[in-house]
Amino acid sequence: MAVRAAVAGASGYAGGEVLRLLLGHPEVEIGALTGHANAGQPLGALQPHLVPLADRVLEPTDPETLAGHDVVFLALPHGQSAAVAEQLGERTLVVDCGADFRLRDAAAWERFYGTPHAGTWPYGLPELPGAREALRGSRRIAVPGCYPTAVSLALFPAYQSGLVEPEAVIVAATGTSGAGKALKPHLLGSEVMGSMSPYGVGGGHRHTPEMAQNLSALAGEPVSVSFTPTLAPMARGILATCSARVRPGVTAEHVRAAYAKALADEPFARLLPEGQWPSTAAVLGSNAALLQVALDETAGRLIAISAIDNLTKGTAGGAVQSMNVALGLPEELGLPRVGVAP
Amino acid sequence: MAVRAAVAGASGYAGGEVLRLLLGHPEVEIGALTGHANAGQPLGALQPHLVPLADRVLEPTDPETLAGHDVVFLALPHGQSAAVAEQLGERTLVVDCGADFRLRDAAAWERFYGTPHAGTWPYGLPELPGAREALRGSRRIAVPGCYPTAVSLALFPAYQSGLVEPEAVIVAATGTSGAGKALKPHLLGSEVMGSMSPYGVGGGHRHTPEMAQNLSALAGEPVSVSFTPTLAPMARGILATCSARVRPGVTAEHVRAAYAKALADEPFARLLPEGQWPSTAAVLGSNAALLQVALDETAGRLIAISAIDNLTKGTAGGAVQSMNVALGLPEELGLPRVGVAP
Amino acid sequence: MAVRAAVAGASGYAGGEVLRLLLGHPEVEIGALTGHANAGQPLGALQPHLVPLADRVLEPTDPETLAGHDVVFLALPHGQSAAVAEQLGERTLVVDCGADFRLRDAAAWERFYGTPHAGTWPYGLPELPGAREALRGSRRIAVPGCYPTAVSLALFPAYQSGLVEPEAVIVAATGTSGAGKALKPHLLGSEVMGSMSPYGVGGGHRHTPEMAQNLSALAGEPVSVSFTPTLAPMARGILATCSARVRPGVTAEHVRAAYAKALADEPFARLLPEGQWPSTAAVLGSNAALLQVALDETAGRLIAISAIDNLTKGTAGGAVQSMNVALGLPEELGLPRVGVAP
Amino acid sequence: MAVRAAVAGASGYAGGEVLRLLLGHPEVEIGALTGHANAGQPLGALQPHLVPLADRVLEPTDPETLAGHDVVFLALPHGQSAAVAEQLGERTLVVDCGADFRLRDAAAWERFYGTPHAGTWPYGLPELPGAREALRGSRRIAVPGCYPTAVSLALFPAYQSGLVEPEAVIVAATGTSGAGKALKPHLLGSEVMGSMSPYGVGGGHRHTPEMAQNLSALAGEPVSVSFTPTLAPMARGILATCSARVRPGVTAEHVRAAYAKALADEPFARLLPEGQWPSTAAVLGSNAALLQVALDETAGRLIAISAIDNLTKGTAGGAVQSMNVALGLPEELGLPRVGVAP
Repeated sequence: MAVRAAVAGASGYAGGEVLRLLLGHPEVEIGALTGHANAGQPLGALQPHLVPLADRVLEPTDPETLAGHDVVFLALPHGQSAAVAEQLGERTLVVDCGADFRLRDAAAWERFYGTPHAGTWPYGLPELPGAREALRGSRRIAVPGCYPTAVSLALFPAYQSGLVEPEAVIVAATGTSGAGKALKPHLLGSEVMGSMSPYGVGGGHRHTPEMAQNLSALAGEPVSVSFTPTLAPMARGILATCSARVRPGVTAEHVRAAYAKALADEPFARLLPEGQWPSTAAVLGSNAALLQVALDETAGRLIAISAIDNLTKGTAGGAVQSMNVALGLPEELGLPRVGVAP
Repeated sequence: MAVRAAVAGASGYAGGEVLRLLLGHPEVEIGALTGHANAGQPLGALQPHLVPLADRVLEPTDPETLAGHDVVFLALPHGQSAAVAEQLGERTLVVDCGADFRLRDAAAWERFYGTPHAGTWPYGLPELPGAREALRGSRRIAVPGCYPTAVSLALFPAYQSGLVEPEAVIVAATGTSGAGKALKPHLLGSEVMGSMSPYGVGGGHRHTPEMAQNLSALAGEPVSVSFTPTLAPMARGILATCSARVRPGVTAEHVRAAYAKALADEPFARLLPEGQWPSTAAVLGSNAALLQVALDETAGRLIAISAIDNLTKGTAGGAVQSMNVALGLPEELGLPRVGVAP
Repeated sequence: MAVRAAVAGASGYAGGEVLRLLLGHPEVEIGALTGHANAGQPLGALQPHLVPLADRVLEPTDPETLAGHDVVFLALPHGQSAAVAEQLGERTLVVDCGADFRLRDAAAWERFYGTPHAGTWPYGLPELPGAREALRGSRRIAVPGCYPTAVSLALFPAYQSGLVEPEAVIVAATGTSGAGKALKPHLLGSEVMGSMSPYGVGGGHRHTPEMAQNLSALAGEPVSVSFTPTLAPMARGILATCSARVRPGVTAEHVRAAYAKALADEPFARLLPEGQWPSTAAVLGSNAALLQVALDETAGRLIAISAIDNLTKGTAGGAVQSMNVALGLPEELGLPRVGVAP
Repeated sequence: MAVRAAVAGASGYAGGEVLRLLLGHPEVEIGALTGHANAGQPLGALQPHLVPLADRVLEPTDPETLAGHDVVFLALPHGQSAAVAEQLGERTLVVDCGADFRLRDAAAWERFYGTPHAGTWPYGLPELPGAREALRGSRRIAVPGCYPTAVSLALFPAYQSGLVEPEAVIVAATGTSGAGKALKPHLLGSEVMGSMSPYGVGGGHRHTPEMAQNLSALAGEPVSVSFTPTLAPMARGILATCSARVRPGVTAEHVRAAYAKALADEPFARLLPEGQWPSTAAVLGSNAALLQVALDETAGRLIAISAIDNLTKGTAGGAVQSMNVALGLPEELGLPRVGVAP
């Protein structure tokens, strides 16, 4: 029997990507699609790539529309999920692609988001230790941020194995779709093509406490995170360059072994052969994360690099993967591990 | 029982795209993968996006390797397919992504390709009148060129219905993957990013006689084709702008009706609602062709525009679609109609 | 003694490009810079590439601010120039980068722009026959549209020499800066990168009557223009592919000779050597137009292709070049003929 | 009297950029242009953007051709400059855009470049303390690497003022022109568009010891450098994100003051107003470096970011700027401080 899924916020990039994946999911039947300003419009005018859904009309995001589905994906602006989720019964699986239920530390939430903390849901990054157990059978899922996904995948073997000091330095480049469809001058094609630029420098990006939360849990001690995001001239993709000082005595062999072991059975997180480095092009539209690690012996630092598609593994793919786990379906079901390249 | 498929030329862009699609095809099992200069290398080093095949090693392209498969896809340089095909039994379905068997006119072949004409195989553009019949049960398929695919889809309703004069003017923009992985200076990223440039201007492009062949067959009289290809700063996609003078008395309603009727039942060729125009982004990685048509009453011309992914519908998707028809499988099997956007 | 120049609309792309060029002009001193919504802001926050003007503050666009300059460049939305120009004395050279004074045919103006016709000023494309004479000493200049610049340069030798029939078919690709800084969803980087798409198809683009006006004047008879603009994934540049049926008896030698003669003394419009084709990358930031022409004997059409930078030769460079002519300065003064490539 | 300049290696990206700048330099007359494989070809076929030099023919790179110039720019592959320079008289100013004479530490040279150390010339980064003095009157200049230029400009105020610990972590994104015109598969447009990828990870990039040399000299103690370069989908530009742990007691005010003071009189290195961050687009084709700095108090790190054009300030612009200093010309002569944006 098919899983019936609704998508709230179907006109945005995250919602569109959820739909792209659900269209290829053999166990899912697509139910209600809702929007806010775009309610009443055919999806074909807003998401022309979703050809099979072109004639579906967006409904308003309200409880009646979303009721009666097995799964509801929320792809709403931050701060709107709690109110919607509250009205959906406990038997409905609610998968929140927004930030509202990611952080455990209410103070950090309030400092970075400026609103009261709504709570914490099981965290939709199955690769992290304990995550699958928490997701299994759950009816609420907080999908991780795109950057925390890339960074946590790159560094969890290092922190889990105690290879590095609790101070991570991260510089990541994202495609512009990470900023959504917001009409802001710096997101115009004329501005971004041919240009790299940083933003949220100096600790201000909202994904910083989420990374610190994940890494600290792995390390068993507080990990400080220096995070600098940059905007790259591409529509999709995150390349996260993560480094930390290695602890005394750690060798390249230790590093390789820890990563190989941590990633051995992961269906989506793949450690590349030595000497090969990830690129975002190789994961375009794919739920795969490509990883590589090196030890810089001169500088005394471990460098771990991950490439993901920010909309797929970084958002909608992570959401569907976690849905699969929660519903007891095969984790890989309906999820591409093949990128669209070149 | 699965269809066992080999791919000759698996390290190139066309071969890689065939593999990407076959990985998602429920009835296909991937057999031998062959290469020339790259034989002996793992596919992961050459096509890092094909994660599930990363550890497969390329074999040399020889008859023994390719024997024993139900289907063999040839993604070889022009002129090499005939020799390989000859050695494959008549019961093997051979799908040639190259140009060798596309043209019926031996003189045109020799003028444009400079080698003896190898013959003509059933033409893998199922949307053309009579094409499905010719493909059904065939064990040889000539996959159309990427530009002729885009142009023939845009103009076949017009010529089929006698709406326009037999002189077509076509300007098309292609992504750089259309030129393959050849190491040529003008294909370097530094040269193509931020740049549009024409090539093969004045009738010299090899796809010109193939377009003329298709349009002339539809018109029932020789159609002259003025074709100008341009290289656009994107990896994938073709946008073909095609026009011809309308015959006296033809109205916008005639045009719309002819296109609506011709495309009504096509699974992959979609006429957009009036006022909406196609973009290559909407078909990235998809086998869909998005089409629109307008009548410019002042200039007296019909303008038809198509957007396809040159590697998918324009090459590998067309190949798999035609394979489905030849083998009696559902035509849409394993083929995405959803683009990876944004 | 320096020419004192003001720029109205200094926060937009056209205004910014005028300033970039004026900063390199040895006879110009930059005076007032005005804006509308951005008045009061430092230019450095809006146009960070104009480093030497970073601390200049935008003033409101009003007659007092603009008074007392030798030259005033208007880079305003269409329809606003007439009112501003009226308040500037007759001795001030007013260079209008907008469309208001380009068309001679009031009916065409009203049909395409929907407002009353403001009049016609000398046309700032010095390469056209008679244009320099009209510009010399003039105190009003209508800068051509970017597409008409590219198209008129590509086709004027053909129409001037009577080589082709009066039906031109034009397909042009533009960089996104041609659409200005308007915050529209289809101009977001996420939408335009990796994508080609048409717009204004079927004769609706406002530059169509301007092209027809130029070509008809050259041909001495009405020239019908079929024009299809497309948006390319690049910030700057126009590649215009223009064709028309050749008149009987015209040979490749006639074509070459006509183009060579027409362009022989032009400082900015350069006919490339045979076999070399223009690219927009080669004219990035340059006032040069690169041109090439071919005769397709099979199709019976002349194909002329031009590449310009839409903001430089297509707008601000054409404006400064025309200013030079009007003021009796050397035509090339302050204008780069070197592109920024790769 | 004009300075007569030759360019050896005029067909490459660095040589082309030197020529672009020299064409705009009021005191320079362009003499011999030489190439290797391309000798005998017109420059217009190789560098179509250099319109005024289109008909100049490349000569072979030999001593007779280069003799008799006041300045010779060497834009040759690494390792070839010493032999050429030796044959040029001591009165000729030789400006080496290659790496041969940058490093003082012969052992580091040999470890990273694998050839015997050729020596050390005055270092062409005038912004560094003492550099102008060393350049003035010199007849030999080693132009810095593009990455060391970006990184040294970003960090010199911090190390000079003792604000940070001697361990720098640097992640930089470069445009593809940094790799030159080499025909390598990973540099094809199809591969780089839409993709971010790292290379030389773990301390292997040849610019690492050059950065360490510069920062150590400023710090007065050995500075360890962890450097990760990444390739971005753009033709030009470097965005360098540099960080180091701040020393105890250092405040945001200290940081700001140190940077403001260090950069106060620099013509090309500009500290942006607080809250504004650099982008590579703003320096396209410009010799300006845009800089910003922040203190991340939570992570205890100073983050300094610079944007330069790798071919201009990072190579050819730095070369011309240093030539100006060496020859006693005004340092800014002929060098744009205005980027080509958008």
